Parts: sequence; C-alpha cells; structure tokens
Amino acid sequence: MELSVAHPVTTTNTPWSDRYALRAHGMKSSAIRELLKLIEDPAIISFAGGLPAPEVFPVAQIAAAAQRVLTENAASALQYGATEGYLPLRELLVRHMARYGIEVTPANVLVTAGAQQALDLVGKLFVNSGDRLLTEEPTYLGALQAFTAYQAQYVTVPIDEEGLCTDRLEEALRAGPKFLYVLPNFQNPGGVTLSLARRRRLVELASHYGTPIVEDDPYGQLRYEGSHLPPLVKLDAEHHDSACSGRPYRGGVIYLGSLSKTLAPGLRIGWMVAPEEVVARLVQMKQGMDLHTSTFSQRVACEVARGGFLDRHVRRLREVYGVRRDAMLAALARHFPPGVRWTRPQGGLFLWATLPEGFDTSELLREALKEKVAFVPGTSFHPNGGGRNTMRLNFSYARPEVIEEGIRRLGGVVARHLGA
Amino acid sequence: MELSVAHPVTTTNTPWSDRYALRAHGMKSSAIRELLKLIEDPAIISFAGGLPAPEVFPVAQIAAAAQRVLTENAASALQYGATEGYLPLRELLVRHMARYGIEVTPANVLVTAGAQQALDLVGKLFVNSGDRLLTEEPTYLGALQAFTAYQAQYVTVPIDEEGLCTDRLEEALRAGPKFLYVLPNFQNPGGVTLSLARRRRLVELASHYGTPIVEDDPYGQLRYEGSHLPPLVKLDAEHHDSACSGRPYRGGVIYLGSLSKTLAPGLRIGWMVAPEEVVARLVQMKQGMDLHTSTFSQRVACEVARGGFLDRHVRRLREVYGVRRDAMLAALARHFPPGVRWTRPQGGLFLWATLPEGFDTSELLREALKEKVAFVPGTSFHPNGGGRNTMRLNFSYARPEVIEEGIRRLGGVVARHLGA
Repeated sequence: MELSVAHPVTTTNTPWSDRYALRAHGMKSSAIRELLKLIEDPAIISFAGGLPAPEVFPVAQIAAAAQRVLTENAASALQYGATEGYLPLRELLVRHMARYGIEVTPANVLVTAGAQQALDLVGKLFVNSGDRLLTEEPTYLGALQAFTAYQAQYVTVPIDEEGLCTDRLEEALRAGPKFLYVLPNFQNPGGVTLSLARRRRLVELASHYGTPIVEDDPYGQLRYEGSHLPPLVKLDAEHHDSACSGRPYRGGVIYLGSLSKTLAPGLRIGWMVAPEEVVARLVQMKQGMDLHTSTFSQRVACEVARGGFLDRHVRRLREVYGVRRDAMLAALARHFPPGVRWTRPQGGLFLWATLPEGFDTSELLREALKEKVAFVPGTSFHPNGGGRNTMRLNFSYARPEVIEEGIRRLGGVVARHLGA
Repeated sequence: MELSVAHPVTTTNTPWSDRYALRAHGMKSSAIRELLKLIEDPAIISFAGGLPAPEVFPVAQIAAAAQRVLTENAASALQYGATEGYLPLRELLVRHMARYGIEVTPANVLVTAGAQQALDLVGKLFVNSGDRLLTEEPTYLGALQAFTAYQAQYVTVPIDEEGLCTDRLEEALRAGPKFLYVLPNFQNPGGVTLSLARRRRLVELASHYGTPIVEDDPYGQLRYEGSHLPPLVKLDAEHHDSACSGRPYRGGVIYLGSLSKTLAPGLRIGWMVAPEEVVARLVQMKQGMDLHTSTFSQRVACEVARGGFLDRHVRRLREVYGVRRDAMLAALARHFPPGVRWTRPQGGLFLWATLPEGFDTSELLREALKEKVAFVPGTSFHPNGGGRNTMRLNFSYARPEVIEEGIRRLGGVVARHLGA
C-alpha cells in the first residue's frame, strides 16, 4: 500500500511543538513558582510565596506518626488504596469541619493531593474549551492555572474590604458562567474577608441563577481577630430545604479544604466536599489522574491530626501568624511612603498593597530583588489583565524581625520608585 | 435591570448533572478499582488488582528513611517544593535508568504522583476532544481512564506473543493518531513482551509517520527470565542523530517509570522522561494539577533507594515474583480445562487467559466470586469493545500456596462454565 498522508520533514532539532500536534493551552509559567526558586537564595527576604513557617511544622508529631503507621499498618500504608481516601481521615475531617459549621458525612468527602488537585478536578468536572468562569478580581493564581489548562475564559467581579462586591455579581452571573469561584476567608491574594451580609446575598444570587459555587477555604481556620463567619456551603444548605439536619448534603457548593497550612504542605493533603453523586463522579476522574493520594501521607496526617492535636496546633499557628501579621502592618505603616494603601487581613497569609495608578510593580520587583526582597506583582492574579500597580505580600513565612527588615528595604524601593 | 435569561426550576432533589452543565466525559467506573474493594474481604483470593506483595515492602528501610529525613531535613521535607521534583531523586532515577539503557539528564525527568499522573499529563499535553490515540489491544485500563477523561477516541493494534503486531501498525498510524501508547515489557494486561525486531520496526514507523510514542514501563525491571531488551526511548535516540552520547535527548518518545512496583505504591512516586522543552510544558501543567508531588514521599523514596538498595531490592522482587509466576503457570496447567490458553510472561505482574470464543468472563466472574476468587474480565482492557472471552490474572499479590488454591477454585468455575 502507498503512503497516503503527507509527512512533514522534521529533525530532532525541530521543537516538539512544531513536530507534533500538542493541545492548545493558555498557560504561562507561574510567577509564584518561578519566584519560589529565589527563596533558595538565603539572602533574599521573600514575601512572595504562600509558604507556612517551617519552624512551626509539627515535626516530632509527624515523625512519631510515621513510625506508628509503619509499625502497626505498613502493609496498608504502603499499598494502593481507595480513590476516595483513607476512611478514618475522611471521618476526622468531617468532625473537624463540623466545628466550623459544615455538616456533612464521609460520603461527601474526597481526599485530594492538596487543594490544588481539587481545583484541577473542578476544572475537569465543569470546563469545556471557551467556557466562562466567574472569579473574584484579583483571585488565586493557582486556580487560574488549573482552570486555564481546560481553556477557560473569565468573567470577574472586583473585591473591596468586604470581599467580592455582590452589587456587581448579578451582571456577571448573567454571562452564564459554569461556576462561581470564591475564597471567602482572608482571600488570596487580597487578604479580605467576605462579610456575612454579602455571603448571604452571594448564595441567594448563585442559587437564583443556577450557578454552582466553588468555595476555596485553605486558611479559614487561621483567624487572628474577629469571629468565624459561616461558610457558603452552610449558608447554601440553609437556603435550600436540605438545611434540615440529618439530611444528606445536596446543595450547590463544592467546598475545598487543605491541611497544607495547618499541618504541612509537603504531605500534599487537601479535600473536597460535595453532594454524594458529585463525589462519585470526582472519584472516577481522580482514578484516571493519580489512582489515589499517597496512602502513607494520608495515614501519617490522620495519625498526627487525631486526638485534638489539629485544633491545638491551629491555636498555636494563630498566635504565631497573628504576631507576624501585626509585624507586617506596623512595618508598612513605618516604612511605606504616603500614597500606598494596603488591606488589613483578619487572618490567612497575605495582604495586598496598592500603589498609585500608573506605577508598575513588575518593574518594582526587579529593583526589589537587587535589594534582596521579593513579592508577587499583582498582575499575576488578574485573569483578564490589570492590577499593574498592586502587589501581594506574604507574612507567614518570615519571622517578625525579618519582616521588619524586609518591609524597610521594600519601602525604600517603593519610595524611590514613586519619587522617580 | 430585568433578568434576561431563563432559569430552570430545580430543587436540591434534582441531580447535579441535570441542575448544572457538567463537562461531557466518557468515563465508566473502573472495574479494577471496584474490584479492589473486594480485597478487603480476606476470604477472597484476588488475582484482580495489580498489587505488589506487601510482605516484600521494605518497611524497615522506609521507617529509617522517614526518621532520617525528618531529623535532618524536616523544614524542606514538609514544605512546598519545586514542581519538577526533588533534584537528588531525579539524579538517582537518571543513574538507575542508565543501567537499563536510557541515557538522559535530570532536566529530562519530571517526578509525578505515580505513573498514573504521568498518563494524565500525557492526556493533557496532547488530547483534544475527539482526537484519536493508538493503543495496543488489549491495553492498560488506567491509561484508557486517563485519556478518555480528555474525550479521546481509540485506534487499536492487536498483540500476540511478541507484543504489538507491527505488521498491522502502519494502517493504524495512517489514521493520524496523536500518539502511540505502548507497554513494551510484560504488557498490562497481556503479559507479553515486544520483541527486539518489532521494537526497531515500531520506532522506525512511528518516526516515519511523525507520531510520538508514549512508552509505559512500570515493570521493566521485574524480569524473571531472558535478557533485558532496549527500551524504545533508547532505540528512538539511536534512530535519530541525537544518538551520539552526550547530546541532549530530543527524540519522539515520552518514557514513563514508577517506583510503585519496585518500592511501594503507597508513596505514589512515578516519573516521566521527555525532551527538556516538553518537560518545561509538563511542569507548567503539573503546577496547575497539584503544585508538586509530596516532598516528604520524594525524600523518603530517595533515601530508601540510594546506595544501591533499589537494585538489591529489585533482585529480591525478581526472585519472589518469579516463584509466583511459576506457581500460577503450574496451577493453570493442573487446574484449567482444555480449550483455555494463557500467555507465559517473562516478567511483570500479569498473565492473560483466553477462553474459547463465545464465552463471557464477566458472567464467569460472578460465579467465581461465589467461590471467593477474583480476576478482571478482559473487556475492561478493550477500548472499542471485544475481549469478552478473556481475563487478566495477577500473580504478584498472593503467596504461591494461595495461588494454587485460587487457580484450583477458578479452574473449577471455568470447567463448569465451559461444560454448561
């Protein structure tokens, strides 16, 4: 038989993207991830990453847990496991969430490789090429990376000190987004918290327009002042008839949690909460993605967290990070020039600074790196462009005295930049 | 403003798939994963899963490694890490692969959450809805799950005792598949090994048609007889000018490896080998998928594997699994009725049995489960249907005496089935 198709003449010097038909994607390398590499230079004071403080990792507890797991259950802890996740861990997460107002059963919980995998699963569940998604502006860069891999488009609603501006939400919902992605607590990158009134309004509008909500809550437990506000998944359950306690959860919210900020990111343990039928579909997808999350990590995390340790450890983190937040706010007041505004987060890991219009924080970063201090320029968090005069500052990683020194350096760079 | 779109009347009793526009997908729940749940019934003798034998997990070494990692490097081992993977582990994998004929650098290696995540990455790299992929028939069910999530279609080439029938390959390549997915060593599920002559022919044809190859090799080291054959990634490099040693790898093969079968699946450590530019793109994708594979797992795996332990452990596994393969072959000869054929694998975890035409192993499975013995019906491994009279049998998990008893029971069921 004769060859019936034309074959391009290629050599091994031809780039793969020219030799082979790769899938279209709108992904850029993450500025955050590239910057993470800088942290390996110990001379740099980094406010860039979203790194927890390593000095509060519960190392002794994790070491003891690893030994116990391998002494008592090695054959299971090192073997393949169920895609849904380790049942005792899912039960523990259910009890833990109940203290924050979320009433579900282990059948509503899927363990994931960090909350980042949960975002990828959300993309796979919903997004066809060109679909519109509704996000806050700015929003979490990692979510944009996950969704953009499925060729999503974005409709955005701005945030202010009370979180997503619900008076702008209805117009955005009319654009027919596949879902509404929101970080209600200590938003990444804004540092702001969605007020109770706006939470209610958001749930009401999303329900009215038939738009599911993806509630991303990696820091909700890390509150340094004020009172815990009910999560959207709870308000949504109340809004519908499934609010009656004891009924299975059937609402329109997928809730995402994580142990990365409350135990350690290196274990890569996150979770999703959804109605049972949705969990069943997500389980099918996760089977094809990685079979299951590391059984060893899951068992170690479960062993560390149980017996009330997770709650005690969260109380300790609140103290440590609260001091760091205060240190950063005080340093900003001392060292940043007039004309720069910043948010005052009640919890979480980040605050958000805004320079006067017309200034570009990407240029500023180059100068800042010469002074050995780093942050993430705000443009990275804007799916449709904008935010050139903004920056995200992390306050969880550096110790208070280092925060003071870093903000002093950065303040000098900003002052020169504004004066120039 | 008036509401401008119609809103369907839904209640929380309406299924999510009717309430919200979920993404189309062709996924069915995995028969393998569902069957894995049966293994929790200790009375069942399971030849179904692809489980390594837990009694040869290097538990003491893993426990010691976990302690060393947490004593010496807890701050890094529990923190976020680079998406590419832990550099010393990538270096170790490069040295390890060199002993099997693969000459690459750490820049060609991406660490993944098991080889299953590598398959998901391959799907994300290549597959748009409706794209055709070329696979062996039968082929690995987990690969079909990964690719089908991207709405792939399949063009297949049958296998025989020498692996993929390369005399049928050219016709399939003319259908314009995005890539050719192949398991050359101890194929899952067939248990057959691609001969050297066919390896050369396959590389030649794929190169001629400009079709990239995805070479999945989770068991390549587990050979119980015969000599190691050069991997496709090596033959492809030789076929092109990049064969000259010292040149960076630029060939048309993506190679997938795993520590799941040689150390422990619960750690979830796999890897991909590809040209540097492809690794860069895969890294972007993996960032959005899970940020990185567990740093703790990676460091523990690296600490266990180093100093020659991995090679020593592989030698031990070859002995243990070789005995089990022989036990299953002997038991099949003793207990299976005439008219049933099976493959004689030189390595790996599986063999493949074929009943006479017209018999249905899915029906047989129901009867077998009553006798407390399990396998996977062959249809699961056929992307376009077929294989109803075939079954996959795993010989790595059960001890030899249990294999004998299980095959005795299964032989009885088969004999009754054929006689009926």
